[in-house]
Amino acid sequence: MVIPAPSTSEETAHGGRLIAARQAFPMAPEPWIDLSTGISPYAYPVEALPDAVFRRLPEPEQENALRAVAAEAYGAPDADHVCLAPGSQMLISLLPLLLPCRRSLVLDPGYAGHEAAWRRSGASVHRAGTAEALSDMAAENTVLALCNPNNPDGRRLDPAALRALVERCERLGAWLVIDEAYADLEPDVPRAAELLARFERLVILRSFGKSYGLAGMRFGVLLGRPGIVRAMADLMGPWPVSGPALAIATRALADQDWRRNAAGRAAHASSRLDRLLHEAGWTAVGGTALFRLAASPDAADRWRGLAAQGLLARRFEDRADRLRFGLPPDEPAWRRLSDALARR
Amino acid sequence: MVIPAPSTSEETAHGGRLIAARQAFPMAPEPWIDLSTGISPYAYPVEALPDAVFRRLPEPEQENALRAVAAEAYGAPDADHVCLAPGSQMLISLLPLLLPCRRSLVLDPGYAGHEAAWRRSGASVHRAGTAEALSDMAAENTVLALCNPNNPDGRRLDPAALRALVERCERLGAWLVIDEAYADLEPDVPRAAELLARFERLVILRSFGKSYGLAGMRFGVLLGRPGIVRAMADLMGPWPVSGPALAIATRALADQDWRRNAAGRAAHASSRLDRLLHEAGWTAVGGTALFRLAASPDAADRWRGLAAQGLLARRFEDRADRLRFGLPPDEPAWRRLSDALARR
Repeated sequence: MVIPAPSTSEETAHGGRLIAARQAFPMAPEPWIDLSTGISPYAYPVEALPDAVFRRLPEPEQENALRAVAAEAYGAPDADHVCLAPGSQMLISLLPLLLPCRRSLVLDPGYAGHEAAWRRSGASVHRAGTAEALSDMAAENTVLALCNPNNPDGRRLDPAALRALVERCERLGAWLVIDEAYADLEPDVPRAAELLARFERLVILRSFGKSYGLAGMRFGVLLGRPGIVRAMADLMGPWPVSGPALAIATRALADQDWRRNAAGRAAHASSRLDRLLHEAGWTAVGGTALFRLAASPDAADRWRGLAAQGLLARRFEDRADRLRFGLPPDEPAWRRLSDALARR
Repeated sequence: MVIPAPSTSEETAHGGRLIAARQAFPMAPEPWIDLSTGISPYAYPVEALPDAVFRRLPEPEQENALRAVAAEAYGAPDADHVCLAPGSQMLISLLPLLLPCRRSLVLDPGYAGHEAAWRRSGASVHRAGTAEALSDMAAENTVLALCNPNNPDGRRLDPAALRALVERCERLGAWLVIDEAYADLEPDVPRAAELLARFERLVILRSFGKSYGLAGMRFGVLLGRPGIVRAMADLMGPWPVSGPALAIATRALADQDWRRNAAGRAAHASSRLDRLLHEAGWTAVGGTALFRLAASPDAADRWRGLAAQGLLARRFEDRADRLRFGLPPDEPAWRRLSDALARR
């Protein structure tokens, strides 16, 4: 069997490219198990949706109801601090149009979408390996963009570190973007939105699809002062979020029991993943409840070995010794992962 | 019964505000019949969608498949001329960020979204009553934005007029935005996308939700030269369109029989609406297969009379003598409209 050449940049830009994997490994057993994303396999139930959510345009009252529920769920002062969007990626992409920053500072490694958006806007991009180093580089009208917890390595700012960073940015006149895409299921990650009442240059992003397992639905929010919230909403225009997404997210974000339960399941599963990876000789680097980053000198070969078994992990162009693993969806998938990891 | 005061600007900015109508007319019989939009009541069937469309992120291959189907359906040269978006409104809102125009020319009356987007971007906005007058005002780096057929009055550019306008804009270095939101079901409206092979400064917008009766799904496309298509896609970032929208639109846009049938039903229904309005003393102004614009000196009073009967028509802040009527969804709705129109 011919082993495909290493990835191109486009192929490794994001996880979830199952169609490409299937083409590259046509002999792999079906069904493929996609572990290349950090999307929860424990999806919030999509019950039969009323026809009206597909047929009618969302009304402002429905959007405002979701904004109020989201403010409560994420710790923002009120609905005026919440901007709804068709996915947090859209917000990442559009933010450079709103913030007056020609210089951006991003965490390395980190989610590549922030760097791509700022670079596209013409801003200079500077990377640093720690939040402390980013903080030292902050200045007026620069923007710091970092994920808490971080993707892909799971590093996190504790409440004191977050508070210090927000205070420093505010004092210097720098903008701070905290991307909490993976914060929902992490009990120890502080909710930056609780600082919005006191700080002006803070913008927080929340992704719905990852922790609720509904990434295809496209829903995310920006939490910020009402001025930036209105500016972002005006930029996108009316009806940015679909009727199905509005209906499902309004129910899901109010459902604290479900979220607590999902956090417990994901924490348990990621511990199980840790053990599996450790037994197979991988070195733990970090992670969140929804994924683990692991290192091995022969990670590139092992990625291909897994793919040949129909298991897609996430690789990284600039770190060939690391793979990221999402959570297997069910027991057959756990068994296939366990078998494939053992087979070096 | 207290008759509410005339509309505020926010209430009349768009149709479809059924929740607000219900609050303003609490005694009106249920169910309300929303005739205030141009959304087809004959919705493309949303069959049981696979879980994966909600759970997984759309893959590039799936997006490219829809782009190819859309190019074919709308007459564009190929998929490279198609940019997918979560509704054509998002494209209208973002276009001013891409086109280098500080001066915009819009048709009056016309869809207010174009004017709002250009005004927001800081461009000057100039209105004219005819496409000919707009054409006369064209100059380098101005943008002309008009709907074909026009909303709300249904006026249309025939093939020769469209061709002349495109040629003039290209020669002068003006950008031309043709919003074909209501073109799908109109056999006599020329498809501007067929001109893309020869003209560079032409941008066409297509809305999916109106003619397919699925406005809540949020899907629309921009048709243009590959450069502007890529620029718009880069601006929004990856995964702009939801999984459900991708799955439904890919099937629907390839379904020519359904579209032909929907066009026939809508044409028949809008003729029936003409007769009903005529019998009730309204003067026809114009329209498309999905709505009719009608005038009456006492239109404001008649709007309230209809609302008191649970029928919501579309009124216009600057034209109090006109109402726009969408198509009733079924026979009971036709009967209620007929009865309410007769009751002056």
